[in-house]
Amino acid sequence: MQEVRVFAPASVANVAVGFDILGFALEKPGDEIVARFSDKPGVYISKITGDNGKLSLDPMKNTASFAAIQMLEKLGESQRGIEMEVHKRMPFGSGLGSSAASAVGGVMAVNELLGKPLDKRGILHYAVLGEQLADGAYHADNVAPSLFGGIVLIRNNRDLDVHQLNVPAELYASVVYPDVEVLTREARAILRREVPLTEVIEQSGNLSAFLLGLFNNDYELISRSLHDVIIEPQRSQLIPHFLTTQRMSLRAGALGCSISGAGPSIFALCQGREIAENVGEAMRKVYHDARINCQVFVSAINQAGSVRI
Amino acid sequence: MQEVRVFAPASVANVAVGFDILGFALEKPGDEIVARFSDKPGVYISKITGDNGKLSLDPMKNTASFAAIQMLEKLGESQRGIEMEVHKRMPFGSGLGSSAASAVGGVMAVNELLGKPLDKRGILHYAVLGEQLADGAYHADNVAPSLFGGIVLIRNNRDLDVHQLNVPAELYASVVYPDVEVLTREARAILRREVPLTEVIEQSGNLSAFLLGLFNNDYELISRSLHDVIIEPQRSQLIPHFLTTQRMSLRAGALGCSISGAGPSIFALCQGREIAENVGEAMRKVYHDARINCQVFVSAINQAGSVRI
Repeated sequence: MQEVRVFAPASVANVAVGFDILGFALEKPGDEIVARFSDKPGVYISKITGDNGKLSLDPMKNTASFAAIQMLEKLGESQRGIEMEVHKRMPFGSGLGSSAASAVGGVMAVNELLGKPLDKRGILHYAVLGEQLADGAYHADNVAPSLFGGIVLIRNNRDLDVHQLNVPAELYASVVYPDVEVLTREARAILRREVPLTEVIEQSGNLSAFLLGLFNNDYELISRSLHDVIIEPQRSQLIPHFLTTQRMSLRAGALGCSISGAGPSIFALCQGREIAENVGEAMRKVYHDARINCQVFVSAINQAGSVRI
Repeated sequence: MQEVRVFAPASVANVAVGFDILGFALEKPGDEIVARFSDKPGVYISKITGDNGKLSLDPMKNTASFAAIQMLEKLGESQRGIEMEVHKRMPFGSGLGSSAASAVGGVMAVNELLGKPLDKRGILHYAVLGEQLADGAYHADNVAPSLFGGIVLIRNNRDLDVHQLNVPAELYASVVYPDVEVLTREARAILRREVPLTEVIEQSGNLSAFLLGLFNNDYELISRSLHDVIIEPQRSQLIPHFLTTQRMSLRAGALGCSISGAGPSIFALCQGREIAENVGEAMRKVYHDARINCQVFVSAINQAGSVRI
């Protein structure tokens, strides 16, 4: 029986200076999605693992299957019998793009199973529809990095005008996911609807310089620029020990450190794996000392995105 | 008698998507500043041309001499006798960085006269002090392009963290200066102090994509991105016939069109000189038809900045 297994990586959205427009993919963690043909028409989910029973088996309520169903309908293949398995290999509600990874994995797996009628550009829209099911908004800042890999700019979601940016070879990410709950809804709700013009100017300068640093492999410029003056001061209050974690990360050599997506995960960018490992340990120690469970992930920037495994 | 003559070009600040952080230099127009040693201690201005009698001969009130005096003091050369001539070869109050060009020309000329004790990086601060005299604010978005040439990013003014960006080879600018008055003070005053977060996101996407377009010589991306959703809608009301000029520029093939600095000048970026000439004529026609005098400048991006001539 023909079967496809796909890995779709976790991702870090916003990246300090690019609220809603930047994201990058991690090498790990990520979700695995399996798809195989079935005699029963339509898509169904036969198994979900790693979710502690929290996710629905209803194919219209799961981002992986929902995204795949949207694609199948557009391809005129909605009567295809497809069985899916969803293996969550990453925490959800973590700010690491869990729902996006499942959505990406779902459409990738089914597209591969069908013999690749679409390329990655072609399936992006359906993965974003899956993300929209979970998140309520049609936005690609986790989906696009998880699908394409690398550091991705989303010029706008309306047209899915997305672009992969240059990734400096020594760029590594350290991520800590502390076991605390931050509701994306709440993280959205606390944001001011208006931003002082002075902050817009400062953030624009940092955003531009960060991009220039990526293009020129200029780690010092990346470090000087990786400061979020708009979102982080508002959201960091929702994450216990954020400021300590940030300070210890920088002390351990991180280029910069901020909130991953809506949190509670915190990411740092580092030059070289050794520093990234040190930064990861520094992050872990903060939460260990505070007696809060956490998971730490240290990874190069994932340049492959979602892949068949 | 030793004499130095310097050309300092006009510049376009903001560049639609980079309010207060982006600027580029034109090949023309620009100011010429002459400096020569004199037996009389201190800096004095012997002649100003092209200003219709509007500029002060008091060396502490003229941006060119004031900037030079600040530099001389820092160099311990404040007793040097230096005579300066200021030849305004560009309109002022035009939004084309007239005061910045004079300040840049002043420090460049005196630095050259002294045998270049400083490089361009070293004189930037003094030129910005000259600009501050005219404008009230310490900002480099006209000064840095006029001095260094090219398209310049100012990450922040505080540290003068400035960077030259890649300039696509076929990039040309068309500029129209309509003979109407826009007070920089008023153009500043009408700006909202707060910006909706949705506009910040859209503008950030456009800013990032514009920079990516420059890096990759991607004219289509430059064109898609060159939209100012924050400042232009507020300031364009101060410039008669702005919207018509913008529409006719785009119709004539411009990649994008917006306000130069605080206006009233309007700039367009174009791919190739021929299109830029056509766009310049389209701009001229709008103001001709409206019976408003105007000057049109068509130019490649000036990559040399301020030079000895």
